[in-house]
Amino acid sequence: MRGFLLDDRLANDTVSVSITGLCDLRLMKDRRWPWLVLVPRRAGISEIFELTPLDQVMLTFETNLVASALKAVTGATKINVGALGNIVRQLHVHVIARFEGDPNWPGAVWGYGKTEPYSNDDMKTFVARLQEALSP
Amino acid sequence: MRGFLLDDRLANDTVSVSITGLCDLRLMKDRRWPWLVLVPRRAGISEIFELTPLDQVMLTFETNLVASALKAVTGATKINVGALGNIVRQLHVHVIARFEGDPNWPGAVWGYGKTEPYSNDDMKTFVARLQEALSP
Repeated sequence: MRGFLLDDRLANDTVSVSITGLCDLRLMKDRRWPWLVLVPRRAGISEIFELTPLDQVMLTFETNLVASALKAVTGATKINVGALGNIVRQLHVHVIARFEGDPNWPGAVWGYGKTEPYSNDDMKTFVARLQEALSP
Repeated sequence: MRGFLLDDRLANDTVSVSITGLCDLRLMKDRRWPWLVLVPRRAGISEIFELTPLDQVMLTFETNLVASALKAVTGATKINVGALGNIVRQLHVHVIARFEGDPNWPGAVWGYGKTEPYSNDDMKTFVARLQEALSP
């Protein structure tokens, strides 16, 4: 983990849910969609293919564990997974629960409209449900 | 591979580049961005976490092989990787080369504007360059 620092913008836009192993798992502060972000705790990486092969496999399994938990917790129609990084270059993987009729369905969520904050209670409740779904 | 059939919309929007192992690698017929799609040749799968663990690892390595080759061929600023599937449910992974100043940079490409076709010659040349970059 030496040298890893969470990007300021990611830190500001998200709250911590848990450490999944390789990654810091965080919830986007936007109640329009249940939206998680996995940040591999490695310094200086912006593309998945820059990770070691072992880290690539870890990231895959952690992403799919999180995607599966998010589907179970939310009953989503579809899970969207994406690593874009055009603005924040620190490697991060979005895992988003989508529903028919949600804002911009079936289009992508990135860049769409304006962030809507959770209430503190709603955010705490949702983080607790995610933590429970992710616990062994 | 039993039972695998390429979705009609994916077949119509893309041309074949190669078989990477698990996946059918295809080029999107849209010259606005160098845009590849990997389709795991497994029937009835719409989420990555529905694949077997071995297939998940195969998909990761094939995606990153393709992403790395696309970066080398195009000199892209950033590679975007995404599995959305809100419209076409058959699991497919987008691998897209992005450049500062390209259409909708730094936003996402999905749902943006209208497709622009390649000329036949340009498409053939680009497919050949990709095939060369992917050959051992």
